Amino acid sequence: MKKLINDPHNVVAESIAGFLRAESGRVARVGDTLAVRRVDAPVQGKVALLSGGGSGHEPLHAGFVGRGMLDAAVPGPVFTSPTPDPIVAAAQSVDSGRGVLFIVKNYTGDVLNFETAAELAELEGVTVESVLVDDDVAVRDSLYTAGRRGVAGTLLVEKIAGAAAERGDDLEAVASVARTVVSRVRSMGVALSACTVPHAGVPSFDLADDEIEIGIGIHGEPGRARIPAEDADHIAARLLAPILEDLEVAKGERVLVLVNGMGGTPLSELHLLFGSVAALLDERGIIIDRSLVGNYVTALEMQGASVTILHLDPELTELWDAPVDTPALVRRGPHGE
Amino acid sequence: MKKLINDPHNVVAESIAGFLRAESGRVARVGDTLAVRRVDAPVQGKVALLSGGGSGHEPLHAGFVGRGMLDAAVPGPVFTSPTPDPIVAAAQSVDSGRGVLFIVKNYTGDVLNFETAAELAELEGVTVESVLVDDDVAVRDSLYTAGRRGVAGTLLVEKIAGAAAERGDDLEAVASVARTVVSRVRSMGVALSACTVPHAGVPSFDLADDEIEIGIGIHGEPGRARIPAEDADHIAARLLAPILEDLEVAKGERVLVLVNGMGGTPLSELHLLFGSVAALLDERGIIIDRSLVGNYVTALEMQGASVTILHLDPELTELWDAPVDTPALVRRGPHGE
Repeated sequence: MKKLINDPHNVVAESIAGFLRAESGRVARVGDTLAVRRVDAPVQGKVALLSGGGSGHEPLHAGFVGRGMLDAAVPGPVFTSPTPDPIVAAAQSVDSGRGVLFIVKNYTGDVLNFETAAELAELEGVTVESVLVDDDVAVRDSLYTAGRRGVAGTLLVEKIAGAAAERGDDLEAVASVARTVVSRVRSMGVALSACTVPHAGVPSFDLADDEIEIGIGIHGEPGRARIPAEDADHIAARLLAPILEDLEVAKGERVLVLVNGMGGTPLSELHLLFGSVAALLDERGIIIDRSLVGNYVTALEMQGASVTILHLDPELTELWDAPVDTPALVRRGPHGE
Repeated sequence: MKKLINDPHNVVAESIAGFLRAESGRVARVGDTLAVRRVDAPVQGKVALLSGGGSGHEPLHAGFVGRGMLDAAVPGPVFTSPTPDPIVAAAQSVDSGRGVLFIVKNYTGDVLNFETAAELAELEGVTVESVLVDDDVAVRDSLYTAGRRGVAGTLLVEKIAGAAAERGDDLEAVASVARTVVSRVRSMGVALSACTVPHAGVPSFDLADDEIEIGIGIHGEPGRARIPAEDADHIAARLLAPILEDLEVAKGERVLVLVNGMGGTPLSELHLLFGSVAALLDERGIIIDRSLVGNYVTALEMQGASVTILHLDPELTELWDAPVDTPALVRRGPHGE
């Protein structure tokens, strides 16, 4: 294992410290926790958005803290849920009195800890709503999940619900927008290589030189099938088909396409894969109305990518286009302007 | 070799096509070349900025085409300079009559082809100035270079000169700003793994499981030393010392720090390395006034990073802070706001 780290057991703390230093003035630490909040939180009159989960998926979640998106992010150890205490501390630090929406990826540990945190926060006078993200169509139940897993679609939930909060929606309305996104977003991923959890020191699984894993999870957990390596066009078809089977987007309807890198894949390959996905959507007559390509919801240094399709409607499009200013995502108005 | 590609000989064309599709409305193709221009080029009354070079360093250069930065980018084959023809076509397509600044990384092939292109463009009535970027302190001459190599500092030249052009400076003044940045910026990199040129199919060099290459170039060309793997703090010291030996930044002076990933290194490690660099600068009393962390000037899927230090002055800081809106870099005002 070669990584740009010091003590393998202290990677998250040191990485967050570097992040806070590099983005000082935009984000700040919550007390003495590893949680990160908007430097201007709590924002008066605004519902707060809080997300979090195991580390190793950067820039998710701390990179999305800022105007128009999250108010706080609570990182756990690598691929391990944060405990309830820092979640509660973060919720208290960002609540303006209008309540806090928890955006939780559907993994058993996260679900339990965020539930407990919600109960504890309510005892402290913070009103909490929670939304579960489960966009991964690859598997139903898995090693860490009852039901589908939450993966790259989480970014879209955070962006769009964040815009709803920013325009002044109340907690129930922001939660409703978030649930609408969850109901209309699906993802599936592929791994070309494994990743290595720093304190484990060995790859989390083995892939032969000529194998890829279709339906990979963002912790390297198994997907649908391990198959011989294929070209980008075939991989795009394998990822897109199950998504569109589940999502039912009709010809002439509009989608947002997110091609997301798993961390170790260069941007040039992600753009190439985007082209493959776009050609398949063209064939079906589905309109790509918005797009995003980059390493946003990662699995350490894994090579691979995921495809996410969000079935747009006019309100979701408007909220996607709203300004956002975070370390890892800045939108500058609609596609095409 | 596992990559998200189709034909290894057609990677650049397919990647650019996907990029143009994903960023349609912001960028457009120059004729039937692989070159990319601002969709609104030529911008009347503005000096145009053009850069380019071998592909494999994405998002450099095409990702930096947009308001406040480049007007055009001309990609060559992977790690190979573009020929003069598309450079001339791109220059003609973005010239508003106020001239075009070529920003060229100091590699023999690029220098020759951009020189020829400048001569040809002048024959077509386009006034051209050229600036060579040679920020890499690792080696003096190398496999592909007479003098120092141009690496991640190129991004800072493009951003700052781009802001000067945007405010209306004439060609000579924009070139002068670019040369000021070149004179005040230094970089050095490290590789933890090699990279594989698609049409070659095998890694460009071998690194043992416990080895790293200090002073690596962005094409995998050799650096200063191959040494046993070290932790991030020690690597930061090895990269920073030669930079500060060359740059002469005094205690109390202000710098911009860019920690740049080589493509296969996750953002969390780059933030951790940024923390290591920041601690060393703190010890010397050098003030980190601006910072940028991410995968910006890459070498395909290489794991590793580079550190770039720009010795700021008030004008450079103001130009750095000016708005920029490109696919890969959006600045939102100064650090700390």
